[in-house]
Amino acid sequence: MSGSSINSERLLGHLRELGDIGRDADGRLVRLAASDNEKLGRDRVSSWMRDAGLEVAVDRIGNILGIWKPAHGTVVADTPLMLGSHIDTVINAGIYDGCYGVLSGLEVIETLNSEGFVPVRPIVVCAFTNEEGVRYAPDMMGSLVYAGGLDVDEALATVGTDGTVLGQELVRIGYAGRHEPGFLKPHAYIELHIEQGPVLEREGIPVGAVENLQGISWQRVTIEGDANHAGTTPISMRRDAGLAAARVITFLRARAEASNTAMVATVGCMTFEPNAINVIPSKATFTVDLRDPDDDRLQAEEAALARFLKTVATQEQVLITSERLARFQPVTFDRDIVALVERAAAARNLKSRRMTSGAGHDAQMIATIAPSAMIFVPSIGGISHNPKEFTRDADLVAGANILLDVVRELTSSKQ
Amino acid sequence: MSGSSINSERLLGHLRELGDIGRDADGRLVRLAASDNEKLGRDRVSSWMRDAGLEVAVDRIGNILGIWKPAHGTVVADTPLMLGSHIDTVINAGIYDGCYGVLSGLEVIETLNSEGFVPVRPIVVCAFTNEEGVRYAPDMMGSLVYAGGLDVDEALATVGTDGTVLGQELVRIGYAGRHEPGFLKPHAYIELHIEQGPVLEREGIPVGAVENLQGISWQRVTIEGDANHAGTTPISMRRDAGLAAARVITFLRARAEASNTAMVATVGCMTFEPNAINVIPSKATFTVDLRDPDDDRLQAEEAALARFLKTVATQEQVLITSERLARFQPVTFDRDIVALVERAAAARNLKSRRMTSGAGHDAQMIATIAPSAMIFVPSIGGISHNPKEFTRDADLVAGANILLDVVRELTSSKQ
Repeated sequence: MSGSSINSERLLGHLRELGDIGRDADGRLVRLAASDNEKLGRDRVSSWMRDAGLEVAVDRIGNILGIWKPAHGTVVADTPLMLGSHIDTVINAGIYDGCYGVLSGLEVIETLNSEGFVPVRPIVVCAFTNEEGVRYAPDMMGSLVYAGGLDVDEALATVGTDGTVLGQELVRIGYAGRHEPGFLKPHAYIELHIEQGPVLEREGIPVGAVENLQGISWQRVTIEGDANHAGTTPISMRRDAGLAAARVITFLRARAEASNTAMVATVGCMTFEPNAINVIPSKATFTVDLRDPDDDRLQAEEAALARFLKTVATQEQVLITSERLARFQPVTFDRDIVALVERAAAARNLKSRRMTSGAGHDAQMIATIAPSAMIFVPSIGGISHNPKEFTRDADLVAGANILLDVVRELTSSKQ
Repeated sequence: MSGSSINSERLLGHLRELGDIGRDADGRLVRLAASDNEKLGRDRVSSWMRDAGLEVAVDRIGNILGIWKPAHGTVVADTPLMLGSHIDTVINAGIYDGCYGVLSGLEVIETLNSEGFVPVRPIVVCAFTNEEGVRYAPDMMGSLVYAGGLDVDEALATVGTDGTVLGQELVRIGYAGRHEPGFLKPHAYIELHIEQGPVLEREGIPVGAVENLQGISWQRVTIEGDANHAGTTPISMRRDAGLAAARVITFLRARAEASNTAMVATVGCMTFEPNAINVIPSKATFTVDLRDPDDDRLQAEEAALARFLKTVATQEQVLITSERLARFQPVTFDRDIVALVERAAAARNLKSRRMTSGAGHDAQMIATIAPSAMIFVPSIGGISHNPKEFTRDADLVAGANILLDVVRELTSSKQ
């Protein structure tokens, strides 16, 4: 099914050029949503879109859509195939996260156009606003609004960590568009992205056919015991909040190891009180991050944790409370598109594997309104949100070619 | 072997009166070593000693010795039986810790004197300087210097947490004595003290015959892993410093539970880095407090921990380093005096039990120069170093009567 290939020099050039835009005085890449730095990136990407012959449309939440409707030929359907991701970044970011998907979408359109390919439906590449959520919460806001999951006026009223209001900032930088978010309902959506995890690199596989995206359950657990003397209190008389917390950590790991699924569990935050060397901890506060692509399993994990907390409370004579901090449903991507990604990789003699996205992406929002899927390429060391974020050029090009093939397939007259 | 009893009203009156001396503006008891507040306590205790007919001697480190040499009768030996403890306190202290031992020693002498009892050797009651170590390190300083474990000039040069020099403060408050520490070598030493732990109260036993004092091993352990994404990093690829730390905590607890000895292990301090909900901990730093009255066992525990850290480092692919923060040898008290305490309790129809002191006391220092032992009375809830520190009057009186009987036995002509 593969035919031509994308222009790798153009794609890599765009990636590096965009990666130079929005550097601070220390050289750090800081292109926070709707900031002056991000405006520079938006301007550049928009001009590339226009140069490529795309119609650039901006919606009210600032999503930038580059629309390709070939003037000649027979467009048989109005609903576009949508490609995309985001160009906003975290503080001190790498150059690939998000940008790779947007620029590859543009690259695919330019390649198809230069070949004289006539798609049966429009192809749109979209840069969604505020995917990172660093300046304004929640993250993935532009795609969430686009999919109708959050009212646009409510989103525009969001006050940022710096006290600014998103709507005012979008007006200020010239990206408060007139289109209602969702004005183009996608026929399907495909997002090409770096993995941001270590699996593909470790396994030496260049292409990930992402079949689902983990549901996320965040809780804060507080354990209260007694702050007694570490020397004079026999083991049998202790109410050790720190020990109880340690038992929860090892319990979660044992379940994750035994599950033989994509379920992961992480205790990232931990504090002990009074935190003194010779005092038994009276209080331990920690977070639990549970993720599973299957919501039934995720619920079962939450229930198992709740049961274990009760057991530990009884056994260790401690008081345990937990508070839900966040809960996102898992997303299952479109099986036909996932299979198409696998076939496209095979046709180019590239190994691929089905995988789960452990991080959130715009695709999870758009998946609620259109068949969606993602393609992953390897991240060296699994590092992301960090200047050390890196994907080899060959892998970047290979991923974009898979996207090209999939797009051609989905917009050819056969479909 | 029991005969008369101490004057409970006088003992309890002294305890409460001393407990009112050295209150701060918020009513907290703060009688830090060599402070103005402690001078008031020293003055009061010295005057009570003099009123009881004792010769008051102060040594260069500020230890106050009340010496009873009955004028009549036959003193057959120069070396005194020494009783004592300390009257300095922590910040926001209770009224019993230390004071109970000093004032009971005084009470026993007054009782014996009023009975016309003639001891075969002098009886001395001593208030040792700076047992708590809050203002000047190390703790148990006065008894350590008295036993020759620390040079007196070095101790006097100690700079406090408030920038003061101990020697200058002792001069200022009038307690820089002329005697060389250790000038009276004790024939034996007995310290009556509140347990500061929960064992006696929980078991309903009024008297603890303390046969030994735990050795202490303090370490700081640092575990280094990788700060990867909590969603995108499979369990098998994690280097989770927090999980490794949790495994050490549960390992130590399992060993302590299995040991069936007085060994205790505590992880009191814990910090995770970067301490973010969705990031696997790259670093965990924690303390380990191991205590055992048997030094061979304590060494075996240290070795077992070191082996386990190696195992965990391999299994979890983390880097583990540990640093020794403190190490004190266990102390074994004199078996004859311990047995005498048990017999004295039995003679008064009081239950007693052999026990280990989990906290440090002046007795552990004096034990290096004389046969020593301790008597414990119950601490309600095991609480100490806290205004809630409490021992019932009946238990205080019972403990002092046991001390009385033991002192009479050790200084009667039979001995």
